[in-house]
Amino acid sequence: MLRYLTSGESHGPALVAIIEGLPANLPLQEAAINHQLWRRQQGHGRGYRMKIETDQIEFLSGVRFSKTMGSPVALAVHNKDHKNWLSRMAPTGDAPDDLARVSKPRPGHADLPGALKYEFDDMRNSLERASARNTATLVAVGAIARQLLDVFSISLCSHIVQIGPVKVDRDKISALSFEELSARAESSSVRCADPDAEAKMIRVIDQAKEDGNTVGGVFEVIVTGVPVGLGSYVMPDRRLDARLAGAMMGIQAIKGVEIGLGFEAATLPGSLVHDALFHDPARGVYRQTNGAGGIEGGISNGEPIVVRAAMKPIPTLYKPLPSFDLETKEAYLAAIERSDACAAPAAAVIGENVAAYVLAEAFCEKFGGDSIEEMKRNFASYQARVAERLR
Amino acid sequence: MLRYLTSGESHGPALVAIIEGLPANLPLQEAAINHQLWRRQQGHGRGYRMKIETDQIEFLSGVRFSKTMGSPVALAVHNKDHKNWLSRMAPTGDAPDDLARVSKPRPGHADLPGALKYEFDDMRNSLERASARNTATLVAVGAIARQLLDVFSISLCSHIVQIGPVKVDRDKISALSFEELSARAESSSVRCADPDAEAKMIRVIDQAKEDGNTVGGVFEVIVTGVPVGLGSYVMPDRRLDARLAGAMMGIQAIKGVEIGLGFEAATLPGSLVHDALFHDPARGVYRQTNGAGGIEGGISNGEPIVVRAAMKPIPTLYKPLPSFDLETKEAYLAAIERSDACAAPAAAVIGENVAAYVLAEAFCEKFGGDSIEEMKRNFASYQARVAERLR
Amino acid sequence: MLRYLTSGESHGPALVAIIEGLPANLPLQEAAINHQLWRRQQGHGRGYRMKIETDQIEFLSGVRFSKTMGSPVALAVHNKDHKNWLSRMAPTGDAPDDLARVSKPRPGHADLPGALKYEFDDMRNSLERASARNTATLVAVGAIARQLLDVFSISLCSHIVQIGPVKVDRDKISALSFEELSARAESSSVRCADPDAEAKMIRVIDQAKEDGNTVGGVFEVIVTGVPVGLGSYVMPDRRLDARLAGAMMGIQAIKGVEIGLGFEAATLPGSLVHDALFHDPARGVYRQTNGAGGIEGGISNGEPIVVRAAMKPIPTLYKPLPSFDLETKEAYLAAIERSDACAAPAAAVIGENVAAYVLAEAFCEKFGGDSIEEMKRNFASYQARVAERLR
Amino acid sequence: MLRYLTSGESHGPALVAIIEGLPANLPLQEAAINHQLWRRQQGHGRGYRMKIETDQIEFLSGVRFSKTMGSPVALAVHNKDHKNWLSRMAPTGDAPDDLARVSKPRPGHADLPGALKYEFDDMRNSLERASARNTATLVAVGAIARQLLDVFSISLCSHIVQIGPVKVDRDKISALSFEELSARAESSSVRCADPDAEAKMIRVIDQAKEDGNTVGGVFEVIVTGVPVGLGSYVMPDRRLDARLAGAMMGIQAIKGVEIGLGFEAATLPGSLVHDALFHDPARGVYRQTNGAGGIEGGISNGEPIVVRAAMKPIPTLYKPLPSFDLETKEAYLAAIERSDACAAPAAAVIGENVAAYVLAEAFCEKFGGDSIEEMKRNFASYQARVAERLR
Repeated sequence: MLRYLTSGESHGPALVAIIEGLPANLPLQEAAINHQLWRRQQGHGRGYRMKIETDQIEFLSGVRFSKTMGSPVALAVHNKDHKNWLSRMAPTGDAPDDLARVSKPRPGHADLPGALKYEFDDMRNSLERASARNTATLVAVGAIARQLLDVFSISLCSHIVQIGPVKVDRDKISALSFEELSARAESSSVRCADPDAEAKMIRVIDQAKEDGNTVGGVFEVIVTGVPVGLGSYVMPDRRLDARLAGAMMGIQAIKGVEIGLGFEAATLPGSLVHDALFHDPARGVYRQTNGAGGIEGGISNGEPIVVRAAMKPIPTLYKPLPSFDLETKEAYLAAIERSDACAAPAAAVIGENVAAYVLAEAFCEKFGGDSIEEMKRNFASYQARVAERLR
Repeated sequence: MLRYLTSGESHGPALVAIIEGLPANLPLQEAAINHQLWRRQQGHGRGYRMKIETDQIEFLSGVRFSKTMGSPVALAVHNKDHKNWLSRMAPTGDAPDDLARVSKPRPGHADLPGALKYEFDDMRNSLERASARNTATLVAVGAIARQLLDVFSISLCSHIVQIGPVKVDRDKISALSFEELSARAESSSVRCADPDAEAKMIRVIDQAKEDGNTVGGVFEVIVTGVPVGLGSYVMPDRRLDARLAGAMMGIQAIKGVEIGLGFEAATLPGSLVHDALFHDPARGVYRQTNGAGGIEGGISNGEPIVVRAAMKPIPTLYKPLPSFDLETKEAYLAAIERSDACAAPAAAVIGENVAAYVLAEAFCEKFGGDSIEEMKRNFASYQARVAERLR
Repeated sequence: MLRYLTSGESHGPALVAIIEGLPANLPLQEAAINHQLWRRQQGHGRGYRMKIETDQIEFLSGVRFSKTMGSPVALAVHNKDHKNWLSRMAPTGDAPDDLARVSKPRPGHADLPGALKYEFDDMRNSLERASARNTATLVAVGAIARQLLDVFSISLCSHIVQIGPVKVDRDKISALSFEELSARAESSSVRCADPDAEAKMIRVIDQAKEDGNTVGGVFEVIVTGVPVGLGSYVMPDRRLDARLAGAMMGIQAIKGVEIGLGFEAATLPGSLVHDALFHDPARGVYRQTNGAGGIEGGISNGEPIVVRAAMKPIPTLYKPLPSFDLETKEAYLAAIERSDACAAPAAAVIGENVAAYVLAEAFCEKFGGDSIEEMKRNFASYQARVAERLR
Repeated sequence: MLRYLTSGESHGPALVAIIEGLPANLPLQEAAINHQLWRRQQGHGRGYRMKIETDQIEFLSGVRFSKTMGSPVALAVHNKDHKNWLSRMAPTGDAPDDLARVSKPRPGHADLPGALKYEFDDMRNSLERASARNTATLVAVGAIARQLLDVFSISLCSHIVQIGPVKVDRDKISALSFEELSARAESSSVRCADPDAEAKMIRVIDQAKEDGNTVGGVFEVIVTGVPVGLGSYVMPDRRLDARLAGAMMGIQAIKGVEIGLGFEAATLPGSLVHDALFHDPARGVYRQTNGAGGIEGGISNGEPIVVRAAMKPIPTLYKPLPSFDLETKEAYLAAIERSDACAAPAAAVIGENVAAYVLAEAFCEKFGGDSIEEMKRNFASYQARVAERLR
């Protein structure tokens, strides 16, 4: 059973994660985690913060000579910016007399509901944790999960399919292989594999920035190499689709999630939605379509898993929205924290790594094993049995 | 902490649920649960099974004189059809020699991944549990949760916003109050509050049935009376939006979930997405829009919660899809189990009750309390404090 | 991941359990579960209730042709006595006007803390669920776990080592094999393998009954065939010893738990406590002592697991203890519910089955697998690897 | 819901804990946590390590101006000794060519079962995490929980009742108040409140050290001010006694746990075990005995909670036990890691803080609330209601 906790505030000393339940002897490269953190910080339309924080993890425990020890893995991402916030974000001591408290909630943020839920007179207490900065630990945890999946040749990529009103032309990218799609997304500043759409997306972002506005988008995560049999229909909380959807919606600013055909499946007749099954002695079972997005009955079916998520525009606008002061009750324009014009490409990277965690969790449940060697044996034996039945 | 387990097969002796963690002394009406089960069985386009099973729950434990006892509540929904399946679905004894095993997987169902995951030579073992029949216990659990929410004036309704290609005209229903919307949905055979769309939806369903085809749809669940402060941004798994999305995607045949503006939020600029905050001494805080769908930063913000889910067409088609026999490997057309032409209206009722459970769970976490009296005191004290801060 | 919920009141319609996470295709014999329930009802010194309720389970779901289906298994034990309690324990309807409420708490029971915690004006609401009657479902769940352990040649037995002041003579039983010890315990009316102690124990029980008093005792559970490697030191809640201790203390009336030497380990010097390790090419690793009780560092070490638990005397005395009426505040003697003079032999059977569940849970975690076939392959591969390293 | 994860190796960079679910605005003193860590390092008979590591926590997140923020709290205890282990315990890079691997398992430790479970060729991977060093984070987590309990006037103390064969004279300490008992324990180098026994205990420890041997002991934790109603009988895993027993047995080297009379309850007749209830208009309900140790039916009953745990002697003996080399299979004497002659007084401090966590967890469940202010209101309202019923 894989589990984790993260902690950290945007301007506190450090972001910390503990992940527990990894098999022992799993090779874990610090550089691979830092690479995911770097990817999270890219994308056209990112602001100031991305420049000052080049995130690097530090392993605090659970890893020895670049391998897991079976024990919980702890890592920290130190906030370089903390030194500028020492008096405002000190863990210990008393609040300074001249502390500027945040009492003007920003619409679309956790500020107001957070302050009411937790009885805060300083909304900074909420916004520091609710900040998207904290997705760094989610990515780090996912980047570890990903190194487990790597051992079993399960790969993930993500790409942007929409920024504001601009959508990719599906016809232009449907013939791309996983590797091609991934390569194109990696080399695009908006993670878009369709060059025409890419150009338009960049213009939309630039225009939004110029207008003091923001734009959201839709990203797609694709996972290949997933064995048949992760997740289950036996209880709702065992379903792989439910777990992916919960995890995706758990990322800041995500307002929609869909798998395979998703909402389009509601429009089409059944005969165009479901994926016919074919068999061939050489290939075993295969499908010619993947409307299910790799999951049938809550279980991975061996096809690539395809998940999309919709991100709302970042709510911190340079042209701020009407709000009020919780102390004085005066009408006000919402306070500005520094912000990006568009974070959808970064969200795609986050989504990729969050999906990696969900898959690793389901993978560990199915295959058990306390060491990577044992897990490999269990996996091989299952795969052989499945292949035998499909031959 | 609220938790539950369900069990049951479509043609087994009974569907059973145990729900644990309810406060003591909560009034629990059997009739209210049966009413939700009845609602689940309605809707234009339902088939044979809905006619033979008029589901009724039996309380087996945890309830005395129509009140909870603090102890786990168990209930059973007996499968009236089980008597026709005694030899094929007997819990005990050996399989009959002439048992007809299911070896031809139906595309879009759990049949094939289930058989490979669990090493079944009879896919009935999968399809019996994966069947949407088992949403009856989900509804029963939700119907209990709902009676808890009732005490605190939290109400839910659902309506259909799309069947196949037909969508409601939002302009025609946007002015409706919660009560009006709910009443219209209840009196519509497709749970649609827009009479013009309703007529078209019925035609779409009838046409699909005639064609041996099926159609899906999109439903919307609305929850009013939710206090500020359920869920949290502190960890992804505490977020109310993540939990709702996971639960909704956990319902059979759901392929997409969105909250508030959902996917549309990816299209619009930030200035049109976020809900400006206003204050008035009499009303306290208010908003003029609800693009957030009642959740900001993973926390309920006091506005109605709005969730939509997309249901794919039921995969059991009378014009079956290509498949193959797992034993013989011969190409085949998928076996037909009896089926509905459209189950989206029923899915809406299921979604409503599933959402009720998620909200009750978050409610119990926030307010604690072992009796409904204690919970009421805790709730009143919090609400008074919130009102005081917003005055 | 194995999990379960139980429900049920002593005089309600039924006791119900759902156990989820069992591998598919596991043979499950109803008779084997009923046998454990029968064993739970035996023992010198049992009272009236044991005679009227010969417990039998009914499978409601999750089992087909005596094999698990991978889906949750639900079972009910119907309370035959419920028919005599219809008006007092009706789940539905209103309380009768002449309902006799319990307002006089019995010392040593949940009556008073339960009534205060849950705001009950009728302590029956607490005592019905807190009753040891509800260990029937614990035993049933354990009896299922046991059939999983059986597949892997893991066996459990229990015996009584103390009743009131009478203890077994360890010298008389230390030479007994697991099978001999088990056989003697099974054939003794107090589950005692030392005939001299057995005779004295029976006299102690008879005397207590004559005096309107009760006596407790200490039982020992032994588990053989446990592979090296269940549980872990990596987190406290993964430790096998912690989980066994929690589960044992979770049985009604248990006040102490010890593993291996237990409290005696606090008295002896280290040189007499720890089990020296020896190696022999034929036997692999072996120990000549088992002071650790089969668990080192929270992990099973391959030796038999030995757990003991102390049961307090049943608190319902025919010579009742001083108490008071919560309504009138008058001093009173505690109300008498029918009772046994000694239930320690039954507690041993309960402990055995509770231990079986804990081991099965840890077993499933380590070996994963969704079918018993897959689990067997995983187990065999691990055992081969361990043997190879110890050769 | 309170939850935590810890991580850390004995000679790794740091020990880390994340605790999540604490109410916001709870005052949290770093010094109070460091004080508990300091207490853990005291005691006659401690060895070298206790001298080089004066543990100090560093808050990494979740705390601002000495108050909780509602978000997860992360803390680190840096291992000062790590600098001497850089090449042997480096998280990253490759193992040095001349790395001395541990292949000789020490009896009584996790070394051998750990190496087999996790497929380690270097038992250091197990012993580093299994080390009692890691109780530092358990204590830190408990020390935080304790500051929550403090707000509600719930206090804990611990004292040693046995070291090796020497037991306290209960008559000498039974008249002591909680404060006196606590004060005496604090000022004793073996945490013993009975001066005569204390002197003998010190001699036993000194003798053991001289003999190259070790001794264990029994400690008792007492908790006062616990409200009626924590824990429950409704499910085994909700029982306060079960949770305390599991947590205590989860501490390294603990082999037995008992509550109230514990094992003695198995010896005595029922009439001498259970605590009669008395009522007085001024005092409300009261008892003259506390055989139950403050827990009836798995629920706190308002009396002090009394838990004892038996610690085995530390297994690392300077006169080492027979063992063998897992690589060469040669017989060998177990490798010596530096060790204490007796760690029971430290274990008492650990037990105290572990108990604090369990109580805080049950407290949060019962009273809910997201801020300490809300929790206080909920608590006061419940306490008033209980008092009203007992008046």
